[in-house]
Amino acid sequence: MEFAQIEAAAARLQGVAHRTPVLTSRTLDALAGCAVFLKCENLQRTGAFKIRGAYNALASLSDAQQRAGVITYSSGNHGQAVALAGKLLAIRALIVMPTTAPKVKVAAVKGYGGEVVTYDPARQEREEVAAQLQAERGLALVPPFNHPAVMAGQGTAALELVQDVPELDAVLAPCGGGGLLSGTAVATRHLRPGARVIGVEPEGAAKANLSVQAGRIVRVEHPQTKADGLMPKALGDLTFAVIREQVERMVTVNEEEIRSTLEFLWSRCKLVVEPSGAVGLAAVFHRKVAGLAGGRVGVILSGGNADIGAVADWFRAERA
Amino acid sequence: MEFAQIEAAAARLQGVAHRTPVLTSRTLDALAGCAVFLKCENLQRTGAFKIRGAYNALASLSDAQQRAGVITYSSGNHGQAVALAGKLLAIRALIVMPTTAPKVKVAAVKGYGGEVVTYDPARQEREEVAAQLQAERGLALVPPFNHPAVMAGQGTAALELVQDVPELDAVLAPCGGGGLLSGTAVATRHLRPGARVIGVEPEGAAKANLSVQAGRIVRVEHPQTKADGLMPKALGDLTFAVIREQVERMVTVNEEEIRSTLEFLWSRCKLVVEPSGAVGLAAVFHRKVAGLAGGRVGVILSGGNADIGAVADWFRAERA
Repeated sequence: MEFAQIEAAAARLQGVAHRTPVLTSRTLDALAGCAVFLKCENLQRTGAFKIRGAYNALASLSDAQQRAGVITYSSGNHGQAVALAGKLLAIRALIVMPTTAPKVKVAAVKGYGGEVVTYDPARQEREEVAAQLQAERGLALVPPFNHPAVMAGQGTAALELVQDVPELDAVLAPCGGGGLLSGTAVATRHLRPGARVIGVEPEGAAKANLSVQAGRIVRVEHPQTKADGLMPKALGDLTFAVIREQVERMVTVNEEEIRSTLEFLWSRCKLVVEPSGAVGLAAVFHRKVAGLAGGRVGVILSGGNADIGAVADWFRAERA
Repeated sequence: MEFAQIEAAAARLQGVAHRTPVLTSRTLDALAGCAVFLKCENLQRTGAFKIRGAYNALASLSDAQQRAGVITYSSGNHGQAVALAGKLLAIRALIVMPTTAPKVKVAAVKGYGGEVVTYDPARQEREEVAAQLQAERGLALVPPFNHPAVMAGQGTAALELVQDVPELDAVLAPCGGGGLLSGTAVATRHLRPGARVIGVEPEGAAKANLSVQAGRIVRVEHPQTKADGLMPKALGDLTFAVIREQVERMVTVNEEEIRSTLEFLWSRCKLVVEPSGAVGLAAVFHRKVAGLAGGRVGVILSGGNADIGAVADWFRAERA
């Protein structure tokens, strides 16, 4: 994926995705020991950066593909994003979700105009269900991360960040399947070649850390973390290739580091961020990367679709 | 209080208070039936608009007064704001707080550099404690709302809102003691004379509604609401005079209307707002003001210093 694709995505997203604000806090800077710039994708439409990649992918389809419709599998933010993108572009969107998905997530997808197809996760694999429907109905598959148009769309968040904040020394982004991180790397390194790009994962879902170390895609079969947006078992071949070449380093944060950072974001910055969205800032707070002190550091807060009660309980449990 | 005082306050606050972002949401607009512009004072320093008035008041003191120091009584956002303003201006700031104040609020004031003086609320009145210390030590009193420099400072939020969002038809603000609302009215009506200014109170703390109806200051001896920032028992003479003349109307919202609006702000807009800060939007959502439909409506979200666990419990209790 090339920078020109990110630029083209940015043009398509004009008037569709929010140009989300970049917020700062003196308290945060004092605690972090550097000037931190929070790119608030939790304030994005659908509550996460995912609309960028989903819309870009759907808008990039041929007329014939758009008429046929699209399919994806995701019970999370990508599913909602594909549903909304379909509605905005008048493209039929099928979202494959497990029968066990929370009602609120099913309702969110339907609220954005998506058609939900359920499967029994005890008996079926979501990829197989999607592949069968895709073949039967001639639908285009829009996977959650391993797709050039999806990766390019996600890169528009960092594009805006680097445009809006001059002279950044580093940009940190969470890594799930690597769509956001690979887009962030290509955008940042094109616009500001001297800036460092750092990817962050939970310790219990460190597939990209392990893959970069091993020099090949390593699977984590049983990821364990509250950061439920970062639980893909493996990077894709496309995202891995970009991360390996263009991300300076991968780091991990543990669950307590995520929790305390999330509590800071909610209680001091007044931002509802989901656990997955806080790992970039957690790495800054907990000094996981040498050389950031005194610098100008961009951090992508990737999403805000948290279960408020569950997060509040998490805060209380750790204080007790 | 005149518009020129608000302009002067805005100049003093440059580089001190954040020019807070104005956020929008298509989902919100669809539900409200008008274009809503959220002035996010929950993202202000100290988590509320109060730093505007406090800093302006302290910066307006004479050199001799600044050397002597200031005193205020507030266990809430104003106390924190005076503490921070004192720190920024190198003015000694005493904050009178009850012995029963939550430790977290005492810690917040001390964290901002304030000196805390406690009193026993069962035996003493906070105004008397403050007056005695003020006299003994020659301190300047910075009351929470009934003071021209405080009111002018609070008016800078609406000043920015009206400057940043062209052609507003109306501006809504919460009303506690009336400092924010009176400043909002003077700023809005000067810059955009055709715009309506509407004040909002909880039903259980409707002193301004009652006062405007009666044509005199009416006290509410036992205010009852979760919006704990809006619980002063009465307006001041200065705030009442401005509200009577320049606020088109006062409306009330009930606790369930506050709760559902707050839940929308947290879960959909991803903004941590305190109950007091949501009453303006609650009035829009629940159609308390005729004639807003289809218009451009500014709403001040006045603060975000919420107890996260308590708010999460409130959301759950109502769903159960």
